[in-house]
Amino acid sequence: MAGTRTVRSTETREAIMAAAERLYAEHGLVAVSNRQISEAAGQGNVAAVGYHFGTRADLVRAIMGKHSEAIERIRQRILDETRGSREVRDWVACLVRPAPEHLATLGLPSWYARFAVQVMTDPLLRAIVTDEALTREPLRETLHGLGRCLDALPAEVRAERGDMARQLITHTCAERERALAEGTSTRQPSWDDTAGALTDAITGLLLAPVTPRSPAKEVRTNP
Amino acid sequence: MAGTRTVRSTETREAIMAAAERLYAEHGLVAVSNRQISEAAGQGNVAAVGYHFGTRADLVRAIMGKHSEAIERIRQRILDETRGSREVRDWVACLVRPAPEHLATLGLPSWYARFAVQVMTDPLLRAIVTDEALTREPLRETLHGLGRCLDALPAEVRAERGDMARQLITHTCAERERALAEGTSTRQPSWDDTAGALTDAITGLLLAPVTPRSPAKEVRTNP
Repeated sequence: MAGTRTVRSTETREAIMAAAERLYAEHGLVAVSNRQISEAAGQGNVAAVGYHFGTRADLVRAIMGKHSEAIERIRQRILDETRGSREVRDWVACLVRPAPEHLATLGLPSWYARFAVQVMTDPLLRAIVTDEALTREPLRETLHGLGRCLDALPAEVRAERGDMARQLITHTCAERERALAEGTSTRQPSWDDTAGALTDAITGLLLAPVTPRSPAKEVRTNP
Repeated sequence: MAGTRTVRSTETREAIMAAAERLYAEHGLVAVSNRQISEAAGQGNVAAVGYHFGTRADLVRAIMGKHSEAIERIRQRILDETRGSREVRDWVACLVRPAPEHLATLGLPSWYARFAVQVMTDPLLRAIVTDEALTREPLRETLHGLGRCLDALPAEVRAERGDMARQLITHTCAERERALAEGTSTRQPSWDDTAGALTDAITGLLLAPVTPRSPAKEVRTNP
């Protein structure tokens, strides 16, 4: 009996996560209520989300965590072939490839890439999800390896280009996912080619020469 | 009398556009009704949006068109200093700089950059807005000049990197606008520095070496 209850509870959690991912991806995080998610997940009890997950942030973390586990397993495999390399492009591939490779396994339509856009556009949730992602060993090792190849870049340029790389990966995957779901034309024939296009582009972006900026306009006088 | 009516009608249109831009930027295009926009614009008549603009697409085009005019005036000025250059970075600057320079003139908080994200995430509206943008002479001349510098790139790579450049400009401006509006820290001290960071990064992205892709998996036999 306890076993059956656990199975049922796991199934309920899965159904809620799937419904939430789809609804959040389609309508945004703010527009979707826990009640709508419970109903879309076929739960008679409209408080099911709260009972199984707690807050909305907890639910988002659970969905991201599930994908993140699969993505980090892929990254570990690519990392095992990359260790020892000092080529920037190899380390960029470690950063880029896992998400599109994971998306290729999800079938049609998938919602994860568009869900991730919504999460990454919410400053608070992005901070929570990013902090959690950085506890994953394969991602940490990747960022460390990439950082070693880029130590000639000023720290603030590395940070801003890291932001840009994240934006490119997130939004390019989401645009491709939407085109696939809607049956419109995609830029590349496969997720593998999308990963290749992103890897080339982000390598160029990270290695671009840095033009000196204009001096700051507000000059503070020394005390 | 007719003059007063025209002034009032212009003021009403401006108020509706300002309210729509803010609401769309905050909540997304789908979540906001014309009634909500009319109310937020202080219009007693909830049909004011339809009366003054027609469809939602017409309203979005009017808002984008207003910003686009200001942006293309800036682009014309930069273009006048760029003509004759064969440096990729100079042409990328023509592409990148006008939007952040325009945003710097809008005061705090501005909504245009986040509104543009919503428009660019809607496939139909993106197509409408992009087609209209491509009728603007300064943008056409910029894309032509940039294309001439990049004619060694295969056409499909140029197209996908063009997409990526657009994504970077749109989302980097929107993230900075949000940070400014919320009083959180920004990556760069000024819009001018953001433009410089984007110009460097996009130049590197466009010039990155192209790695040959894996052959397509579906091979069509000859007839």
